[in-house]
Order: sequence, then C-alpha cells, then structure tokens
Amino acid sequence: MTVKVGLLGLGTVGTGTAKILLDPAGRHPLVKAVEIYRVGVRSLDKPRNIDIPPDRLTTDLEAIATDPDVDVVVELIGGLEPARSLILKAIHHGKHVVTANKAVIARYGDEIFDAANEAGVYVLLEAAVGGGIPVIQPLKQALGVNRITAVTGIVNGTTNYILTRMQAEGGDFEPILKDAQRLGYAEADPTADVDGLDAADKIAILASLAFGGRIKLSDVFCEGIRHVSASDIAYAERLGFVIKLLAIARRETCPVSNEALEELQLRVHPTLVPKQHPLASINDVYNAILVEGDPIGQVMFFGPGAGEGPTASAVASDILNIAATLQSQSVAAKAEPQNPLLACTHQHYCQVSPMADIVSRFYVRLVAKDQAGVIGRVGTCFGNHDVSIESVVQIDAHGDIAEVVVVTHEVKEQNFQMALADLQDSVDIQSVPSVLRVL
Amino acid sequence: MTVKVGLLGLGTVGTGTAKILLDPAGRHPLVKAVEIYRVGVRSLDKPRNIDIPPDRLTTDLEAIATDPDVDVVVELIGGLEPARSLILKAIHHGKHVVTANKAVIARYGDEIFDAANEAGVYVLLEAAVGGGIPVIQPLKQALGVNRITAVTGIVNGTTNYILTRMQAEGGDFEPILKDAQRLGYAEADPTADVDGLDAADKIAILASLAFGGRIKLSDVFCEGIRHVSASDIAYAERLGFVIKLLAIARRETCPVSNEALEELQLRVHPTLVPKQHPLASINDVYNAILVEGDPIGQVMFFGPGAGEGPTASAVASDILNIAATLQSQSVAAKAEPQNPLLACTHQHYCQVSPMADIVSRFYVRLVAKDQAGVIGRVGTCFGNHDVSIESVVQIDAHGDIAEVVVVTHEVKEQNFQMALADLQDSVDIQSVPSVLRVL
Repeated sequence: MTVKVGLLGLGTVGTGTAKILLDPAGRHPLVKAVEIYRVGVRSLDKPRNIDIPPDRLTTDLEAIATDPDVDVVVELIGGLEPARSLILKAIHHGKHVVTANKAVIARYGDEIFDAANEAGVYVLLEAAVGGGIPVIQPLKQALGVNRITAVTGIVNGTTNYILTRMQAEGGDFEPILKDAQRLGYAEADPTADVDGLDAADKIAILASLAFGGRIKLSDVFCEGIRHVSASDIAYAERLGFVIKLLAIARRETCPVSNEALEELQLRVHPTLVPKQHPLASINDVYNAILVEGDPIGQVMFFGPGAGEGPTASAVASDILNIAATLQSQSVAAKAEPQNPLLACTHQHYCQVSPMADIVSRFYVRLVAKDQAGVIGRVGTCFGNHDVSIESVVQIDAHGDIAEVVVVTHEVKEQNFQMALADLQDSVDIQSVPSVLRVL
Repeated sequence: MTVKVGLLGLGTVGTGTAKILLDPAGRHPLVKAVEIYRVGVRSLDKPRNIDIPPDRLTTDLEAIATDPDVDVVVELIGGLEPARSLILKAIHHGKHVVTANKAVIARYGDEIFDAANEAGVYVLLEAAVGGGIPVIQPLKQALGVNRITAVTGIVNGTTNYILTRMQAEGGDFEPILKDAQRLGYAEADPTADVDGLDAADKIAILASLAFGGRIKLSDVFCEGIRHVSASDIAYAERLGFVIKLLAIARRETCPVSNEALEELQLRVHPTLVPKQHPLASINDVYNAILVEGDPIGQVMFFGPGAGEGPTASAVASDILNIAATLQSQSVAAKAEPQNPLLACTHQHYCQVSPMADIVSRFYVRLVAKDQAGVIGRVGTCFGNHDVSIESVVQIDAHGDIAEVVVVTHEVKEQNFQMALADLQDSVDIQSVPSVLRVL
C-alpha cells in the first residue's frame, strides 16, 4: 500500500522533506511506501534543486487539500493564513496532516485538534518544536506514563546564537544581532525571535503535550533578550551563571506540602542558569529540552533546532508514523479507532498562575552611591518585603558611583517587585539597569 | 478495552512499573486501561512495599507466559535463563512482550524476533538501553527516516560514575571501585560493568536498530576501564580531554570518496573525549546517546541510565505503546498487519570491520630514557609505519626517566599496533603503561 502525500510548500523544509522521500536507500524501508503525489508551490517556473515531475506541481494549494487521492497533507508554507484554512480543509476532507507550523498550532490548536478528532485523522507536528530533535513524539509516547513536573527548553536557535556570541566575545546585543542577520542566523525582522514570541509558541505546544491540557498563548509570560547587556553576562559569569533564553512550563507545587497543584507556570525570559546545569552548555544555534517527571527524573533532548535537514527529518518522521499506522490497519482508516498516543484528545484548558504569584530567584544590577551603609540599606529594603538575599557583590566602583549585583533567594514575584519599586525610590540608588530571573 | 499485563519479576524495576500502573492519576489516560493481571515472583511471602492483591501473585512464571487472558508479558527477571525461554513461550502463545533484559536481547535477539514476527506480536525493549532515556523508540520512529552514520553512547552508569570520580578526585580505579561497591553504584561482581560487557550488549542493540540489521555480539570489540589510571586522566585533562567509556557504532566511510560503506565499526573502550564534545560533560551515573545521521546532523539523548523510577518509566511506556496499538485495532490483533515502526523485521547480519582496519586517533603514554633525541626517535618509529603524530609532550621527568605522552592523528589500527610493537622493542623505551583511543 502506497501512502500519497500532498506537500504544501517547496521552500527549504519542503525541499528537504522531498529529498528524503525521493531517496529512500539506507533509510527505514517504509520510506519507499510514501509517494510525493502532489506539490503546491507559489510559482511553477522557479528553478529548484530537486527533481519533481512538473505535472505533480500546482499553484492550487486548495486542490491538494481536497484531493480525494491524497492521504496526508504536509503543510510547510508557514504563517497563519492560508496555512490554518488549508489545514482545516484537509482535515474536513479526511486527510491526516503533518505541519511544522508552530505559530498556527499555538494559536489555532483547539480548532484544529477538535476538527481532527471529529474527522478521525491525526495532526502531527514534530517539526514545530526543536527542529530535528525528537521531543513531541517522546512527550506523547515514551514519557506519557510520567507525571511531568517541568519542561524547560532552549527552543530558539537565533537567541541562543546571539547570547552565546555575547558570552564568548563580551559583545553587546545590537552589533551581534546585526552580524547574525548578515550571516543569516537572524531574520531581517528579528522580533519573533529576540522578543521571545517564537519560544512562547513552542512552550505553549510543549506544555499542552506535557500537561495534557490546552494552553491559551496569551497566558505565556514573555520577555525577550534585547535588554541583556554584555555587563550582565560578565557579572553572571563571575557569579557562576550563564544567561540563556529559557522557555519554562512547570507545575506549581504547594509551598507547604510540596504536592503538585493544578496551576502551571508558563514563561519565557532570559535566565541566569548555573554553569553546572545541563542547559548551561547548550550553545550556538543548538536547542535542548529538559523534561522532569515522576518517576523518570530528568531527561534532556539536544540537537539542531532549525535548518533544512533537521526540520525535514522531523517532518518525514511524522509522515512515516502516519504511514505505519495506515499500513497496520486492515480496514479503511476511518473505521478504526484512533491510536490514543498519536491523537490529541484533551479538551480542558490548563490553569496558569499569574506572574505575581510565581516564586523564583532574581538577579538585580544596581547603580548606587558609593558610600558607607548603602549595601546595608539595600538589604533592609529587600528585607522589608520578605525578600531574602543570597549574595550582594559590589562589582565596580568609579568616582562616587558603585555597581552592585544582588542575587535573591526564592521569592514571590509580587514581593520582589514591591521591594524593587522601593529601591528605585531610594536616594541611595541612581538606577537599576537590569533585573533578570535566576533558575 | 482493558489490556491485561503479566509481570514476570517484582524486584526493583517490577515494583516501579507496578507503582506507575496502579497509580494512573496525572499520567496519560491510557494508563487506566492497563491492568496488572498476574505477577510472577520467587517467593509469595516476601514483604513488599507495594499493594498487589495476593491472589494475583504466583511463583509459576510459565503459567503467566501461557495464560490465555494475558495480552502483554513483561519480563523483568533478568539473566539469560529462564528469561529467554519465558519470552519465547509467551511469544508462541501470542503475547506481546516487553523486556528490560539487554543480555537476552543482545544474545538471543534473532531467535526472539524471528518468533515474534512469525507470531505477529511485538517485542519492545526501551528499558534495555539508557534506563529511562527514550532512545529505542526515537531510533525506530523519529530518526528512522535518516541514514544513520553513528551512534556513540555513554551507556553504563557504573563506569561513568567511577571515571567521573577518578577525574574529580584524582583517584585510582581500585579504591574508587571499592567505594562505588560500598555505595551501591557497582555490583559485588563488577565484571559486566567495568569490563565493558554491559555496554557491548547495549551498543549491539542500538546498532541493530540504527543500521537495520542483526548484530553478532562477538563482533563487538570490548575493552573495559580497569587499566585506566589517575595519571592518564590527569594527562588527558592537560591535553583538553576527559576519559569516558564509549560504546561506538559507526558506518565506515570510504577514505577516498567519503561515501558510506556497508561495514560497521562496533567497539566499546575507554576513550579520550575532547572537552567541548557533547558527551564530555555527561557525568556520574548519567547516560547519553549521541545519534548522527543524514539529514538530521547530531541529536543527543541524556538522562538517568538506571534506577527504579527511570527504568520503570521505560517499561511502562512500552506497555502503553502496545496498549495504544491494541486499542486502535477494530479487529482481533492477529488479523491485523504489524505496525512496521514497532516491529523488528530485518533479517540480514551487519558486516563488521575487524579492529585492525579501523581508523582512529591514539593516546600513548611512554616511559622513556630522558636523553637527547628520544622524542625524535619516537617520532621516527611512528613515522616508519605511516603513523602521523599530532602532539608529543614530555609530561614528567625524574632521574633519567621521562614520561612522554603522544597523541596521533587518525591512523589505521594495524599500522599503529606495528609502530607500538617497534617502540616496545626500542632501547629508548622502558615501558608503555597506557594506550587509549581518542575520539
């Protein structure tokens, strides 16, 4: 039995996917059973470095989504529309869907999975998070028997590249962003990456899988890396940390009993990561996702977070997964119940804690007057709001001005923000150039 | 539909698995559909910290393997016999099998998978390699579309713990082994771990999955860590390396065209790993498996390589995978074709290169006479056999004796061994205390 694939989009990832499917030698034998039946492109005349018979190409993407002979529609055009409409159309026509589109899934996942469940088809999205790293499939299958307590990821390659270079070179954000754009590691409009929006899409998807509930994207707290300075990276280094943009989904625990609560923390922000932490050594464009659960403890998945080959590997593996399911059914697909480890059936929304209630450690860099008693008064100001301090270090003094770096113990965000407001009003403090969270 | 499980063995991993299945809240909903139907134990009277109704316990393991009501037999008794016979009996009675038994699979995989294919049942073994780390499932599913070029793993927690402590403390092998035994990290008879046999079993299994062929365990070259000394670890450190016991399966490439050949390298040995390599920072009892392929590049899986919780997570996930497959079939299991990504159907044996043909780098520690020209004569001796040298460092001199460390460029093992034999005959060289391979 041949499984017929309709590819929507023949850009980088589409081309990579087609290369895998057209050249099955040395891969899983099932690749041979997958046929690229139709390919939707923007222009028929564009020269391409892949050999697809011209009669399979069409500019009519909707015709592929509704073609009765197509078994699996692979959406690789990106963006919100027409991607969303084409995915829904394909589902309504009884096709399984594979997509790499994190933006569509993070925003319209509810609508898409409701439609898929009603139609009895699968929507697979391994390529949407972590490029080629298998993380969606393990979360759905190998790790599903665990009670997941946290998913913490470096899921955006562009920001990790920028932060790694800032660390290595002691450089500031803007010039390194410019260089990254020149080298093709950052886009001309870098907003989605550097402001953390891409990471927010991805952690929403991972949290939904890890915690078995739907996520409203607007519930994800999101802070980018534009304000991270070379000084903060250098000071963090002296304190034993590196700065990474982390995407965090964590089940809250009761501060008294330590039992897991219903609420989740969902946040993306630059974070001081202790150097001995497994995520601290993930550099350049690499991604890594650390999953914690009971009884497994910690597992981490590491690899290239983007690029033609890795992303195509993830897309092709989803296609193969559907092909395997279709081949193992003796009767027509729609007469069979769905495989509960491939389908996505949760209906409720996860409860998400407001940031004010979240407990974490903080790093604060203050510019203070270099005079006796300042550090004491800073300590008192934090103490007044029940913010307990782990370390205070005077890093640098010039003239009558000193830079002071404070790292707090775990503290409720709300208390910390009140202490910070008091500090900013204090006559001792000239400015507070940076506030970062600490893992 | 309830899936009935017969557990063989209620030791550490059996107990951990039962705990997951008996306490499904917060896990994948499918866990609720799995019932612990019967449990085979050695003694009915032993006190246990898990609540299983006494009428489900039996000492008659064969009765479980042949019970017509059991859907999945989970073999957790370990060892070769009666594990092998019970697995085969269960298969012949049409049961799916889940096992954590790497020794049985590495030795009797052919027989077991032949029987399973004939009976149309699955044999899953996620827990056999890497404890809780999902690596078997990703190799079979998410990574199968790739042409795998190499699998390199730290797959034995005991030896990694010992080497990590030797590195941290500057200590020698024997006392740290003793301490590891006292702390429960090494067994009373440590042979299987420290001589690399456990790692050899595991790389044979990984290679078979990665390269889609059967592996003869006797084809795996195996060298343990007993001879690794504190000095070697210290010298390696100075040269930018850490020493790890690596299990390596690699497809040979043509030295001229760089194209992939049929032959595999299969080897377990202590290895100098460059500090910036992803495997260099895997410490203590943690395991990690690095998979390289086309087009994915490198991905790495990291986590706890043993222990009740992690191993039970892997076992339970295999049970869930089978339950999911059974639930998605509308007709009796045996009437359906097998899912080609879960089944294991390859029949041919992989060709394995003899060690003499393998190309790698070497680290050699020599005790030489401390006199003019020795280093030159060492270099000439290597050069006579086409062994090109990357670095020669005189590490230490006392009296008229000097310790010299040589790191070679990539060289064919056979040439290296001839050069080494010449060196050992040389009047300049007093002894060659260590020879290690370099990644």
